[in-house]
Amino acid sequence: MTHCTRALCAALLAVLGLSCSPASRLAAPAKGAGEVSVDDALVQFSLVAALATGDYVEGIPLRDVLVGGDFGVGTFSRLDGEMIVLDGKIYQALADGTVRTADLKGTTPFAAVTFFTEDGRIENFAAATLDDLDEQLDRKLPRRNAPYAIRIDGDFTEVKLRSVPAQSPPFQPLVNVVKHQVTWQHRSLRGTLVGLRCPAWMGVLNVSGYHWHFLSEDHTIGGHVLACEFQQGSLRFDECTSLVVHLPQSSKFDEFDSSKVNEQDIDHIERQRVRIRGK
Amino acid sequence: MTHCTRALCAALLAVLGLSCSPASRLAAPAKGAGEVSVDDALVQFSLVAALATGDYVEGIPLRDVLVGGDFGVGTFSRLDGEMIVLDGKIYQALADGTVRTADLKGTTPFAAVTFFTEDGRIENFAAATLDDLDEQLDRKLPRRNAPYAIRIDGDFTEVKLRSVPAQSPPFQPLVNVVKHQVTWQHRSLRGTLVGLRCPAWMGVLNVSGYHWHFLSEDHTIGGHVLACEFQQGSLRFDECTSLVVHLPQSSKFDEFDSSKVNEQDIDHIERQRVRIRGK
Repeated sequence: MTHCTRALCAALLAVLGLSCSPASRLAAPAKGAGEVSVDDALVQFSLVAALATGDYVEGIPLRDVLVGGDFGVGTFSRLDGEMIVLDGKIYQALADGTVRTADLKGTTPFAAVTFFTEDGRIENFAAATLDDLDEQLDRKLPRRNAPYAIRIDGDFTEVKLRSVPAQSPPFQPLVNVVKHQVTWQHRSLRGTLVGLRCPAWMGVLNVSGYHWHFLSEDHTIGGHVLACEFQQGSLRFDECTSLVVHLPQSSKFDEFDSSKVNEQDIDHIERQRVRIRGK
Repeated sequence: MTHCTRALCAALLAVLGLSCSPASRLAAPAKGAGEVSVDDALVQFSLVAALATGDYVEGIPLRDVLVGGDFGVGTFSRLDGEMIVLDGKIYQALADGTVRTADLKGTTPFAAVTFFTEDGRIENFAAATLDDLDEQLDRKLPRRNAPYAIRIDGDFTEVKLRSVPAQSPPFQPLVNVVKHQVTWQHRSLRGTLVGLRCPAWMGVLNVSGYHWHFLSEDHTIGGHVLACEFQQGSLRFDECTSLVVHLPQSSKFDEFDSSKVNEQDIDHIERQRVRIRGK
């Protein structure tokens, strides 16, 4: 915050249980004194732990997400669907199973993106399950403690996806929300896995380990991936050399107590794996 | 990392127990495709947890630190003294009790800086002990989950400082290094506390809570603060709305296992408090 008035406003309104106008705004990149340039960054808006505790009602305009990157994952305000950022476009996989190009006037409480620049590639890549995929990547990705963006274009034998419907008050922690997630399954389709791997040191900032979203080639099917099997994938990865975290400016963000966030809950919310066809 | 060759180099050399040339380089800001601009950020180079486990032999040129900010704290390669960044200059408080302006061709394995823009001010501020200072600030700083840079110019009744000498192989974890720290005490001097407060969600990325370094007004006395008492301080704070972490490009960084880093050790290393005059 560069202006004293904003700090005072936040302090005064916090006492009243309110937040600075515009409500729950995240700190978006803006030109000004003290601006720094960061190359090859994983750029995230808010923390997954704040999201998990229920800080998902408001957020930053979606167009600001595209200032941070052209590839990644996230959600939408009130958790209205799963976000897939691919080739500089934001897709919204809704709980009714449809996918739409997101309205950039919409907002997000959490997203993580990067400008995808290929650092490595593996052709003819196949995986029998999501766990198989993660295990192969653990062996193949060069560095243990760097964040990675991973893109896999391929023919999917099977994919099981989930999304969640927009939430209404009283807003529940994410661990309760996903109890009511909607899931669906598709066979024999061409599409793209959009994934991130965050190193363990990121703690409650993001999802430690792998986090996969999917979008079909024709942009009609998408969501958070619970299971998948694919052949003949073309895998590309981008190793990030820095991390940028934009913090929410809401009073809600200040209520969040990281010592009460359970990393196992985050794991359950974002790294569920289900079995398909007995695997 | 934007080039495949660098990733391959890292992977191949990691097998040989070596690191990419230049050795142990941190990812420094550079112009290029995919560059993002971040305003009002706490900018850090490496993680305090990696530093604590012994990743302190190499680092980035000090001039790159000043690209990230003009105010902050840190250390020097081989832990050769305590770093104080104040008004855009880097001071090096050596273990022999002297302070010098750092040679910008030197390197650092860990530093955290910001471009200090005042968001709030408290005049006639006094503290009887370091714990008293921290407790007052916990009540006065507006936001629980934002990082803060805090500058206090004042008349110090007493200050107890430490520094550590440059380390030689075999390089020890920080918890062992500080067993041999050098301490000194000064009375009645004018100077500046240069401090950061990092929120708990930052986990092993930085020092949770307050971290104070000191520089006398005449730039002859400085170090990491173990105890202090001051009257008539002029306190200014800068609330950061984002966090930037530049990651080391060394193979040593990839050896570090965050699950084995003890946050209590970091607390002991960087948040020791001693008593002066029975307080």
